[in-house]
Amino acid sequence: MTRRAADGGTPLAPTRRVHVALADRSYDVLVGAGLLGDAASLDSLRAAGSAVVITNEVVGPLFLERTLRALKPRFASVFVHTIPDGEVHKTWTTLNGIFDALLARHFDRNTTLFALGGGVVGDITGFAAACYMRGIDYVQLPTTLLAQVDSSVGGKTAINHPAGKNMVGAFHQPRLVVADVDALASLPERELVAGLAEVVKYGAVLDDEFLGWIEANLSNLLDKDHGSLIHAVTRSCEIKAAVVAADERESGQRALLNFGHTFAHAIEAGVGYGAWLHGEAVGCGMVLAARLSARLGLIADDRAGRIEAVVRRAGLPVQPPHVDASVLVALMRVDKKAVNGEQRFVLLEGAHGAVVAAAPEDLVARVIDDARAP
Amino acid sequence: MTRRAADGGTPLAPTRRVHVALADRSYDVLVGAGLLGDAASLDSLRAAGSAVVITNEVVGPLFLERTLRALKPRFASVFVHTIPDGEVHKTWTTLNGIFDALLARHFDRNTTLFALGGGVVGDITGFAAACYMRGIDYVQLPTTLLAQVDSSVGGKTAINHPAGKNMVGAFHQPRLVVADVDALASLPERELVAGLAEVVKYGAVLDDEFLGWIEANLSNLLDKDHGSLIHAVTRSCEIKAAVVAADERESGQRALLNFGHTFAHAIEAGVGYGAWLHGEAVGCGMVLAARLSARLGLIADDRAGRIEAVVRRAGLPVQPPHVDASVLVALMRVDKKAVNGEQRFVLLEGAHGAVVAAAPEDLVARVIDDARAP
Repeated sequence: MTRRAADGGTPLAPTRRVHVALADRSYDVLVGAGLLGDAASLDSLRAAGSAVVITNEVVGPLFLERTLRALKPRFASVFVHTIPDGEVHKTWTTLNGIFDALLARHFDRNTTLFALGGGVVGDITGFAAACYMRGIDYVQLPTTLLAQVDSSVGGKTAINHPAGKNMVGAFHQPRLVVADVDALASLPERELVAGLAEVVKYGAVLDDEFLGWIEANLSNLLDKDHGSLIHAVTRSCEIKAAVVAADERESGQRALLNFGHTFAHAIEAGVGYGAWLHGEAVGCGMVLAARLSARLGLIADDRAGRIEAVVRRAGLPVQPPHVDASVLVALMRVDKKAVNGEQRFVLLEGAHGAVVAAAPEDLVARVIDDARAP
Repeated sequence: MTRRAADGGTPLAPTRRVHVALADRSYDVLVGAGLLGDAASLDSLRAAGSAVVITNEVVGPLFLERTLRALKPRFASVFVHTIPDGEVHKTWTTLNGIFDALLARHFDRNTTLFALGGGVVGDITGFAAACYMRGIDYVQLPTTLLAQVDSSVGGKTAINHPAGKNMVGAFHQPRLVVADVDALASLPERELVAGLAEVVKYGAVLDDEFLGWIEANLSNLLDKDHGSLIHAVTRSCEIKAAVVAADERESGQRALLNFGHTFAHAIEAGVGYGAWLHGEAVGCGMVLAARLSARLGLIADDRAGRIEAVVRRAGLPVQPPHVDASVLVALMRVDKKAVNGEQRFVLLEGAHGAVVAAAPEDLVARVIDDARAP
């Protein structure tokens, strides 16, 4: 389908559709411009029961009006629940506030939750849907680049625990993802850049041609060119969809999507959650993982250099924060992907490949220290 | 296999094995005597990683020693976490206490939780396993008759919310269920009787021949005869396993297992949780559902009378509590099985059948009032 701007004039970029093939849990990701306010975006949903939009106090004022316009023709009742903004609120308290609101209004299993916002709103709404009355439907309406290319697709839901991020959660697939690049117009540059880290990740680990496209179109992406954004989001979602379809619960291939993330989780915890955006930590984490791969002799130095160059050009940090390497290594040990206390890394291998493997802690620390040198 | 008593003497009843066929989530239910202390009961588990036993302050002193004896040869580390006893503790606070304990000791995904106790321990441990790091393995070691014949099989896990029982939870199948009838020796009579309600339920709704066997063996069951208990638990689990295999997430046939439960949930809420045991409420609920079926002309009066007689002979209540019928009806409306605000009942139909259907609220209230008459 081709969409036109609200004045009926200029045709906008056509909507792209990515299918996530998971048997009875299959769903589509729609990527385009002007989708949030268009009831046609919801055509694939059962039009029955109630809709509850979960959003936050920052996103709501920007996108709620158009979202409700699309929802109201299709649902008997539409209710909005607003949560506070920020990763620090991805907690049981906020989750239980959602349950309280749903139960107080007697929402039954024939209710669909709509997550309108970034990764925090998506993760907590998905987890609420996973647990409410043992599981109800939900739809992702991601409004940040990070959420559009990563967290809204694949069914990982969670809340944080004081002992670690995403420690309590579930695999629960959405019924639909609607990624409207119009929503990125108001996104602060720092968050746009953070989202690009995950885009780079797909290219770096799984699609060398896409990495080349990112390198060639980086300035268009930073300028929020619609066509470039739609291609970046679509290709990212296609890669993620293929990986998730092959390995929904991350027993194998899906782990490759954690490239840079072992370092990133330690960085985020080491500097204190919120000081670095997740995407910033992933940017730096990819540089460190690439350097580690080179130190282990798995790749030539120029592949590591290429990753570092694109991360730097995107405006992401390439040097680790001022946290002792031994502290970062210790934080990696408690990551939930550790197996029997041994931390594993996604490492690059050969010209285009990647593997999951352990690495000696002293070498990991040395790579961190070396990356800090000017 | 045939087991012998600890002194090597008298052969005990042979262990029965019920298979729950759910593709990659399949598992066995073992039913027998002396199973908890026997490492062979755990033969089907991956012998790797850590074991964490979740039990309560009442059950632990009775069965923990033998359980640890069976676990220690098979797991690198075995840890015990004790929760308070009682339905009132099936809450987020208790659940989070489990997460705190697991995270403080850095238990990773290669950890298996063992639920040693009744339904509360099983439900909360299963839900903890469903959510911890987005899902780890767990094993049910049910020590009450109710848990052995019902809650430990089928993967329904949950905690309560102030607005209702089991409102927050997940479907998460265990890796193994070990039902040791030896554990029932110390079970108070009131709890044994409550467990019989669910046994009667299987016969009443799904297996007329089994209902006949229950009628003929009720006094043996009340006397805790090992052979009779093993047969009752095994046959109950066989019926439940077949239903769950056909309809894991209760979109159809599995709803039949809720016979008596719409009334029961309202009774439990109406008298205040804990005043009636769940099984007691189910006993009375089955009587009411049978009477409602007769009033609707779905069954002959003698089928309803037969249900009432066996419930009464088991020592279960057949009269509803002193709560106004209108209050009970209102409580049914908020049950999580309500669809668009209309409550549905499992009703008996014909000579042996059962259906799920709505019923007029005024008739439901009349059935409750009539059952109260002496």
